Amino acid sequence: MENERSSTAGKPIRCKAAVSRKPGEPLVIEEIMVAPPNPHEVRIRIICTSLCHTDITFWKMKDPPAIFPRILGHEAVGVVESVGDDVLEFSEGDYILPVFISDCGECTDCISKKSNLCSKIPFQLSPWMPRYGTSRFTDLKGEVLYHFVSVSSFSEYTVVDTANIVKVDPSVPPNRACLLGCGVATGVGAAWRTANVEAGSTVAIFGLGAIGLAVAEGARLCGATKIIGVDVNPEKFEIGKKFGITDFVSAKECSSTPVSQVINEMTGGGADYCFECVGMVSLVHEAYACCRKGWGKTIVIGYDKPESQLSFSSFEVLHSGKTLMGSWYGGLKPKYDVPVLLKQYLNKELRLDDFVTHELKFEDINKAFDLLIKGKCIRTVIWMASENVPPT
Amino acid sequence: MENERSSTAGKPIRCKAAVSRKPGEPLVIEEIMVAPPNPHEVRIRIICTSLCHTDITFWKMKDPPAIFPRILGHEAVGVVESVGDDVLEFSEGDYILPVFISDCGECTDCISKKSNLCSKIPFQLSPWMPRYGTSRFTDLKGEVLYHFVSVSSFSEYTVVDTANIVKVDPSVPPNRACLLGCGVATGVGAAWRTANVEAGSTVAIFGLGAIGLAVAEGARLCGATKIIGVDVNPEKFEIGKKFGITDFVSAKECSSTPVSQVINEMTGGGADYCFECVGMVSLVHEAYACCRKGWGKTIVIGYDKPESQLSFSSFEVLHSGKTLMGSWYGGLKPKYDVPVLLKQYLNKELRLDDFVTHELKFEDINKAFDLLIKGKCIRTVIWMASENVPPT
Repeated sequence: MENERSSTAGKPIRCKAAVSRKPGEPLVIEEIMVAPPNPHEVRIRIICTSLCHTDITFWKMKDPPAIFPRILGHEAVGVVESVGDDVLEFSEGDYILPVFISDCGECTDCISKKSNLCSKIPFQLSPWMPRYGTSRFTDLKGEVLYHFVSVSSFSEYTVVDTANIVKVDPSVPPNRACLLGCGVATGVGAAWRTANVEAGSTVAIFGLGAIGLAVAEGARLCGATKIIGVDVNPEKFEIGKKFGITDFVSAKECSSTPVSQVINEMTGGGADYCFECVGMVSLVHEAYACCRKGWGKTIVIGYDKPESQLSFSSFEVLHSGKTLMGSWYGGLKPKYDVPVLLKQYLNKELRLDDFVTHELKFEDINKAFDLLIKGKCIRTVIWMASENVPPT
Repeated sequence: MENERSSTAGKPIRCKAAVSRKPGEPLVIEEIMVAPPNPHEVRIRIICTSLCHTDITFWKMKDPPAIFPRILGHEAVGVVESVGDDVLEFSEGDYILPVFISDCGECTDCISKKSNLCSKIPFQLSPWMPRYGTSRFTDLKGEVLYHFVSVSSFSEYTVVDTANIVKVDPSVPPNRACLLGCGVATGVGAAWRTANVEAGSTVAIFGLGAIGLAVAEGARLCGATKIIGVDVNPEKFEIGKKFGITDFVSAKECSSTPVSQVINEMTGGGADYCFECVGMVSLVHEAYACCRKGWGKTIVIGYDKPESQLSFSSFEVLHSGKTLMGSWYGGLKPKYDVPVLLKQYLNKELRLDDFVTHELKFEDINKAFDLLIKGKCIRTVIWMASENVPPT
């Protein structure tokens, strides 16, 4: 028996979206049209979305791959409103999390346990739906609005490819599950899947934003016993303690001594794992310089400018026994690993609650940008329905 | 009951050595004095030694860390002639292999399974005995002769620290065991210990000298099914087949297309493991460019100039899922892993025989330099006693 279809299925939906029309200018909440999903796509009613630094990066960006007008946002939770043809995996009403990387389940990478970089639908910064190179968004004048990293969650409705969606256990509140769309999942995954942090080990984390704090949380879960946070803002130590940070290095106070030297001294020769979570080449070099000879791993998570180059002494790479690797979405395979993390949250192992420092109504979305730019929040959750915002 | 001591124990030994007196000039076979071993040292009678490219590098070198007059050589097998005070692990008559990296058995690194970089007696290019900063060699005029990487095997007798010696099963012939002193062990170990090559995987090897061929042998033992050799000399393909090379890329014929592109096409997206065995920064970049996204590992084995810098796109490191690492003595822990390799040789699993292409008398040692410089040999074994040289 076929499920009953929603009354909006197959028709365009008129709804509100926060459109980024010009670099660095406040988003404009306006009515837009969201076309029905194509085959292998679903249309989603967004429940809530959180703001990640990558949204800000692309919101401010003036040169390509920047493009406007665009619907940003990529950490969100929603409900499937309708499905395109050939969609068997999802049905109307499914509670889901869109993810910016794909998991087609069929290609060599998706079948392998070792990769999370889908070959069939590679990650793209292009402004289109991945399988079609077209948009599902138009404004009321008929002008195309561009997509963002296959998610575009700053809209009451969006269209997402089935390869970019994970089902969520309905007992996980949306303002917790949405964190796994990008930043928090990336940090936790980098410690768990990419670095595979060993129990009893020592970890150094450069940058204590949401990702760095999530690395600490992931490292804590893996049983790391010394977790050193590095930040220019000493207030981050108190915040970091909630996420497992045991020691703090104030980068501001290390003007005469390189941070790497301080950490080498604190750890008697270097940390077992160093995570760069800021996106600064110089910090990757510092991280590499203070990961333990013989077995230390340096994991790059931060996104620097596209043209940035990392530089290492050939001899040091050869004879130091150190490993350099990157972590994209924390090395997580969305459809396999996100459900594991959600279960860990429900079992009170993975602590997501403290990442959410602010909750706002959709019409106040520009305040969320302000808070993140000024470093006043870890994560701000934006609710599409005002009545869901908890009283402050 | 105490063992009987050799008649030479405790006294200086006068013997022949091939001394490197000036950069790039033929070694001079002359009589020298070898002092008795200090505590934690043993004096060894060398049976045979093979020539490695690193000897040539330091023989040609004009600027520091070059130093003359020096006794080079670091791939050798010998017999313990006498032991210093406090030496409990070795006795006179032991059949042993000196190794240029230490394995003190006590420090954090030596206790750990993850590191082969002894912290107590770190690898050094200094010209002295590691614990004392002094030499055991003088010429007949009383002038000090310098040591080389804690081995100095181009001498009938040498003194080596106990941390740099491994006992050898006497059923392994010396002209096979000596190969595990450096090059062959490094290559096999890089595939086995550093990269941990998976069965069924694809491997690309840049440079088919002894180390590159040994990587192939190690990869073959690990069960790699496609082993691609890259070299400027197409003759290396025939040689390489003996060591497991299944495919060949002639770097000379790739003038218009980068080697990495050729390998990406051959492998449908890159090799699972790429090994750089030449010591050229540009080849490390090529290797990184053709190791498989998602899980590829690039392993640096070649030694470029000390000031050489490797450079990678920060974004590629972040989002490619590739790993960069070095392999120093193949990641092998000398006292633990060399006996395993020797056993594999005796079991006819590890094939060492084909690495030895030439065998010479000690007085012909300069011919060995010629052969290696001209690329005419894989390994030349030099026998201290002329009667051991097999007839050609």
